[in-house]
Amino acid sequence: MKHILIIGIGTGNPEHLTIQAINAMNAADVIFLPVKGAGKEELAEVRREICERYVTRPGIRITEFQVPQRQTAERTYTQSVDAWHGEIAHIYGELISSLPDDGSGAFLVWGDPSLYDSTIRIIERVQREGSLDFDCRVIPGITSIQVLAASHKIPVNLVGKPIEITTGRRLARDGLLTDSTIVMLDGEQAFAKIDDPDAEIFWGAYLGTKDEIVRSGRLGDIAADILTLRAEARQRHGWIMDIYLLRKGRDFEG
Amino acid sequence: MKHILIIGIGTGNPEHLTIQAINAMNAADVIFLPVKGAGKEELAEVRREICERYVTRPGIRITEFQVPQRQTAERTYTQSVDAWHGEIAHIYGELISSLPDDGSGAFLVWGDPSLYDSTIRIIERVQREGSLDFDCRVIPGITSIQVLAASHKIPVNLVGKPIEITTGRRLARDGLLTDSTIVMLDGEQAFAKIDDPDAEIFWGAYLGTKDEIVRSGRLGDIAADILTLRAEARQRHGWIMDIYLLRKGRDFEG
Ligand SMILES: C[S@@+](CC[C@H](N)C(=O)[O-])C[C@H]1O[C@@H](n2cnc3c(N)ncnc32)[C@H](O)[C@@H]1O
Ligand SMILES: C[S@@+](CC[C@H](N)C(=O)[O-])C[C@H]1O[C@@H](n2cnc3c(N)ncnc32)[C@H](O)[C@@H]1O
Repeated sequence: MKHILIIGIGTGNPEHLTIQAINAMNAADVIFLPVKGAGKEELAEVRREICERYVTRPGIRITEFQVPQRQTAERTYTQSVDAWHGEIAHIYGELISSLPDDGSGAFLVWGDPSLYDSTIRIIERVQREGSLDFDCRVIPGITSIQVLAASHKIPVNLVGKPIEITTGRRLARDGLLTDSTIVMLDGEQAFAKIDDPDAEIFWGAYLGTKDEIVRSGRLGDIAADILTLRAEARQRHGWIMDIYLLRKGRDFEG
Repeated sequence: MKHILIIGIGTGNPEHLTIQAINAMNAADVIFLPVKGAGKEELAEVRREICERYVTRPGIRITEFQVPQRQTAERTYTQSVDAWHGEIAHIYGELISSLPDDGSGAFLVWGDPSLYDSTIRIIERVQREGSLDFDCRVIPGITSIQVLAASHKIPVNLVGKPIEITTGRRLARDGLLTDSTIVMLDGEQAFAKIDDPDAEIFWGAYLGTKDEIVRSGRLGDIAADILTLRAEARQRHGWIMDIYLLRKGRDFEG
């Protein structure tokens, strides 16, 4: 039986690696490195640096692979994601087949594998649909949510209150539903579209990297500044990854 | 000026420590270790083991301190928490005062400092109310949510869907509001009180430790088993920490 490791690597700072992740990398025969999408070069660079720093056991092979683009033309969102996962499952299947008998392969996942990432889902699909015999282990990693909170030095929740984690698309559609709302995957700057000027925003981009930028303040006061700053940064780098917390109310209120 | 480090240490497995956390611990003059509440001995043991394994710079002092119990008699929840934070702020103030000039002190926080933990909030209160001159840095740590997901090998969210993180008290009151709901701080086993037999539950206790237990299944089928298992484990250990994900629906549905 072969073994697959799905390893969270944090969000840009190689020091986000846990001891568990480092040990898991060193237990692998092959480390699979995705090369893909926005920030291709920088993100691939972080992964390579992580391997250089922490892979100490001799003989571990590093295999880069291309991740296909998601096709959206003439498809619903669901069809598009499902077909894309199918293509990736096919590639994962080939990577896993190429492992030696009883060998271990490691997938390095940005942030934590459980948060808006499909590696676990796709590996399960390979297991379900294919004829490959392998087991799988997941190693947690630091998420962008935690790095955002650490950089702002804030708790994510108000005392005893809930937290919502959602996408830009949903925030734009539904508005703010909870005291503390984390927004990820926001390609449309939904924070600037909602009508909640008194909410506080804690925003961060390129978190964990040397290019990290953070801003916070009353949404009505700084939404426009963040839009400008974000557009400039995106222009300069050619890509951006950002995340924010929107908060209404205070501790011990209501 | 003095320096305070608030360091996330993960949830029971010393290998959850990140390289950043280990470096931060080794940059401190004093590490402050809380001794408190449920699982006092075991949790203090994990913290001590972390110090033994990872503190390598000679001369670092380790200071244990007692955390007071929260008083609930004749107080609202808010008054009770606020007064409790006040007491802890007083203790933190004394610990910080005891640091050498320009010295650094580190607080080790269970899991991640941003998630249902008040260390950041209380340190801010010391800064606001006291006359001590210090700055502060926060180092993220692996949360119990991520360890739960890793142990079950599942993503927390359905594709493109939101996540709610809430408390047992709120789940009991409001029921399930989102497809994916994480419940923490549940002293009343709220999962067994809600009327949603078709939801799936992914439950875990003592995550990351050698005593870790996980169970998953249809809520209507296994809620009673989890109640029994939890009661027995709690009896045996004298304390318990558990967390769960409740999920309705499936990927690519609706
Ligand atoms: C596909 S999700 C992956 C999340 C990842 N698994 C995690 O644990 O953070 C990508 C989204 O995560 C957020 N993100 C990830 N890394 C980030 C970073 N370094 N700075 C800011 N946001 C980041 C952004 O909201 C981005 O749109
Ligand atoms: C005061 S909160 C602290 C959470 C912590 N800061 C974190 O990042 O996980 C305590 C709650 O976290 C969850 N928890 C923390 N550690 C856990 C563990 N090892 N196993 C199961 N649940 C845990 C439980 O729901 C518990 O009631």
